[in-house]
Amino acid sequence: MAPDLRIDLDRLMGRLRALGEIGALPGGGVKRLALSDADKAGRDLVCGWMRDLGLDLTTDCIGNVWGVRRGREDTAPVVIGSHIDTVATGGLYDGNLGVLAGLEIVETLNDAGIETRRPVAVGFFTNEEGARFAPDMMGSGVAQGALDLDDTLATVGIDGQRVGDELRRIGYAGDAPPLALKPDSFLELHVEQGPVLEREGIAIGAVTGVQGISWTEFTVTGVSNHAGTTPMAMRHDAGVVAARIALEARAIADAFGPPQVATVGAFRLEPDLVNVVPQKAVLTVDLRNTDNVRLIEAETRLRSTARKAAAEEGCTVELRSLARFDPVEFDEGLVAAIETAAAELGHGVRRMPSGAGHDAQMFAPNCPTAMVFVPSQDGLSHNINEYTAPEEIRAGVDVLFRVALARAGAD
Amino acid sequence: MAPDLRIDLDRLMGRLRALGEIGALPGGGVKRLALSDADKAGRDLVCGWMRDLGLDLTTDCIGNVWGVRRGREDTAPVVIGSHIDTVATGGLYDGNLGVLAGLEIVETLNDAGIETRRPVAVGFFTNEEGARFAPDMMGSGVAQGALDLDDTLATVGIDGQRVGDELRRIGYAGDAPPLALKPDSFLELHVEQGPVLEREGIAIGAVTGVQGISWTEFTVTGVSNHAGTTPMAMRHDAGVVAARIALEARAIADAFGPPQVATVGAFRLEPDLVNVVPQKAVLTVDLRNTDNVRLIEAETRLRSTARKAAAEEGCTVELRSLARFDPVEFDEGLVAAIETAAAELGHGVRRMPSGAGHDAQMFAPNCPTAMVFVPSQDGLSHNINEYTAPEEIRAGVDVLFRVALARAGAD
Ligand SMILES: NC(=O)NCCC(=O)O
Ligand SMILES: NC(=O)NCCC(=O)O
Repeated sequence: MAPDLRIDLDRLMGRLRALGEIGALPGGGVKRLALSDADKAGRDLVCGWMRDLGLDLTTDCIGNVWGVRRGREDTAPVVIGSHIDTVATGGLYDGNLGVLAGLEIVETLNDAGIETRRPVAVGFFTNEEGARFAPDMMGSGVAQGALDLDDTLATVGIDGQRVGDELRRIGYAGDAPPLALKPDSFLELHVEQGPVLEREGIAIGAVTGVQGISWTEFTVTGVSNHAGTTPMAMRHDAGVVAARIALEARAIADAFGPPQVATVGAFRLEPDLVNVVPQKAVLTVDLRNTDNVRLIEAETRLRSTARKAAAEEGCTVELRSLARFDPVEFDEGLVAAIETAAAELGHGVRRMPSGAGHDAQMFAPNCPTAMVFVPSQDGLSHNINEYTAPEEIRAGVDVLFRVALARAGAD
Repeated sequence: MAPDLRIDLDRLMGRLRALGEIGALPGGGVKRLALSDADKAGRDLVCGWMRDLGLDLTTDCIGNVWGVRRGREDTAPVVIGSHIDTVATGGLYDGNLGVLAGLEIVETLNDAGIETRRPVAVGFFTNEEGARFAPDMMGSGVAQGALDLDDTLATVGIDGQRVGDELRRIGYAGDAPPLALKPDSFLELHVEQGPVLEREGIAIGAVTGVQGISWTEFTVTGVSNHAGTTPMAMRHDAGVVAARIALEARAIADAFGPPQVATVGAFRLEPDLVNVVPQKAVLTVDLRNTDNVRLIEAETRLRSTARKAAAEEGCTVELRSLARFDPVEFDEGLVAAIETAAAELGHGVRRMPSGAGHDAQMFAPNCPTAMVFVPSQDGLSHNINEYTAPEEIRAGVDVLFRVALARAGAD
């Protein structure tokens, strides 16, 4: 890489901050749920930057947007991408960094007047977080054929709105069909969102793959009744069953040990009143493991405990899968290229699996794919205090740049 | 009682149905939360009936309304009362029956041209349910000096509105101060809301008292984080602590045995998203026992488990008392009078404690008080399928009438 190919860190940080102002929360952090008004404003800002950089924009039918910088040859592009939606209590970096790093690389190439052999594209993918609509990785999942388009457009979110309606409402229901984006390769820079790199004092994670993700919604139905008059023996308390399921999720993670994780993130009762035995409980369980066989064991044990707990309380339980993605492994050549680039740039590097789902996971079955991780302070993510220092960001972008440029061919 | 003093059951059932239409739910049942628009409409309807019957109306500063039928002597009235607010999934009978039975008795006396020695009053008391604002028995509690007026007016409900503002908004912030209602005695007819009378085939419950009620809100604070990347050992999951508290409430009820009951009716997580470790959980626990010493033991055990569970998870927990009423015992003379009246009328009768809180509980320390229970089908209450058959209602009103008339003096 020519010595003048130095990214402008201030420019990148400026874009990160500007995007973070859209949907900024009073106490810090960002809320830019997928397909919300804030998401539309964020998309408009990023699309404006893409156009300013001379990229050729395409929007597909699920609202994914990518901008292509021509190469000498009219071949499949090297795609750098991630997402710009956030959870309700998100930070500045999750997703946004991967997209804006792509723009910074394009601008650096533009400034240096460098033409690559293959085109380089920068993309952002709809609803990676799954915070408003399940499943997560929705846009990249549809784009890469892992999710059905019609089912996805009909998906109803936590606020009762449909994906298809919201796409049209914010003006991002595009024309390009699923599989329109055919990358030569896919590269994603992302904050680790976990504690490993920080703890070990290592600058760069060369991500080897993403663990399997299983999201299940349990709906428990009991009988609402009076909290004061109903003898314990006569209760059909949906909330007690839900609490048992929640603690069983924790018990499974404890029993299986790492890398198994289990989280009950959502839990609601009806009618949710202090003196009424709940007639309904809805809770979600997020199970993950790098080993699909163990993940299936965890799912099986959780389901059977849920059925048993419901039966013992005289309740019923219904299960709905909200997301189910098998573990994926990234391209060995690209993972090795990330290790080499990091070493050449003088950064510590380690191979590691990803605990979080990522758009790269959806691309991996279709094209050579890899990810670069940078440290997350205190391992925090999906939290308004998510933080990665500017110099750590520079290291990650430099590694990404080197690998992307080698792949695109700058010779 | 003269043989022509026969209540008009159809008239009473007609009033019950008419009141039940206000706030009727699509699938049956009623939602008429205290101080809501529906509550205002229900109050207006009942006040209209009171005026039609020639009663002298008073509204006090907490929105309680009572209408007085003069007696030959200008003494304290025999008060027949209950409430007309409902829970979110309420039935036609809970509370409403006790108020409309009072009106039916007044109308029967009017029709027969009977003058009593003491005045007879019919009252309804604000927010007995505690479904929108805690504590329950709010209106009768303020009226009888068990709750502080200013604190109560400042209480914020589940929808963020204040009691005082809502009272003014619906036009029921009256002039009469706390303790303005000084009854000679207080009588309340109510559905049992439990299974005992039906199971034993007994028409009338002569209620001996009300068990102690303890409502506590637990707010658990942890750290929100990513469900996929955060190792189990590094979590501070507010939801797991909340689930432990919920199951401990159940365990306490199981360990103590009847009459101890424990209910987690409300349970909320923040941010309540499938892939975010919850940073906050708020849940309520409703504990009841006829024995105050046991109730205190249950409260102590629950609190200590909550603190332990929070500490083990690296979370904090804050406790807030939403309601705390000691058990009360009703007036032996009136309880015996109910037994005698039931027997004279040919109805099976048994003494029993009340599992539910009632307005009568607030009057008991200040004047001779008692309650009449009628059966609840399948023991259901706070449920849209709450049901008591018309003939069962007649039996209850007849007993109430006889006891009230004896007390008021119809000689
Ligand atoms: N990277 C990221 O936070 N993705 C959200 C999907 C998930 O892992 O739950
Ligand atoms: N009777 C009745 O349902 N009262 C509500 C207060 C309570 O017992 O929770």
